[in-house]
Amino acid sequence: MPDILHKVRVNASSAEKTYQALTTCEGLAGWWTRDTTGDSRVGGVVKFRFGGGGFDMEVLDLEPARRVRWLVVDGPREWIGAKVDFELRQEADDTVVLFEHRDWKAPVEFMHHCSTKWAMFLMSLKSLLETGAGQAWPQDVKVDDAH
Amino acid sequence: MPDILHKVRVNASSAEKTYQALTTCEGLAGWWTRDTTGDSRVGGVVKFRFGGGGFDMEVLDLEPARRVRWLVVDGPREWIGAKVDFELRQEADDTVVLFEHRDWKAPVEFMHHCSTKWAMFLMSLKSLLETGAGQAWPQDVKVDDAH
Repeated sequence: MPDILHKVRVNASSAEKTYQALTTCEGLAGWWTRDTTGDSRVGGVVKFRFGGGGFDMEVLDLEPARRVRWLVVDGPREWIGAKVDFELRQEADDTVVLFEHRDWKAPVEFMHHCSTKWAMFLMSLKSLLETGAGQAWPQDVKVDDAH
Repeated sequence: MPDILHKVRVNASSAEKTYQALTTCEGLAGWWTRDTTGDSRVGGVVKFRFGGGGFDMEVLDLEPARRVRWLVVDGPREWIGAKVDFELRQEADDTVVLFEHRDWKAPVEFMHHCSTKWAMFLMSLKSLLETGAGQAWPQDVKVDDAH
């Protein structure tokens, strides 16, 4: 099944600090959407909202400073049942983040959109950790909004 | 086989103008790499260089204001034989660009890197057409360079 893949490197950071930004509502609100609520422990559900719609993620697996795995339990129908994985790896002073949004049912145009948006949000995560300022919704970088 | 997919929307542009940025060395040098040379007609080969290495693309198919298709004929071994497609669609004053880098042999870590880089280069294309200034190599946005 089609997957979205990305990689960013957070300079002068630690895997522990990056892990915090992926596993606390405050951290997630700093780079993905300001409207992040819920229970970010294993088995909990985190709700991400973007004005109208959004996504509910069940936390499947957490390995401190190593891995975060979510299952999409609610949201656009193309997302439901898909998995979102973040794998962290420390390399000297940097943290490498490998991202996968796996198991799309089909490579629909919405998947093209989400792939580009994920890249911008991962750059927002990188920016948050490197500079203290991310570009979370509603200050996110627009990639295909109508004029 | 795994594919990289992206979508951007160029605001207040035309499909003809976007097509020019994809089918002339001058246009390509404005958003991908300043070091772009070669023959951008069907059957020709365009050479993209980034300091050390780079990619040679054979132009497979051109439909003015609609589609550009390349075959990777030289470059990193993971790229050779892959296809790169740009599909253009005019929507009111905007041009939607659907991008695919298809037929990777395996979802290696280099594919994660390339997916994020393609997103940044497509945002560079959008910026070039909207503002006159892209972020072509060597002024490209760094996503996973070591500190």
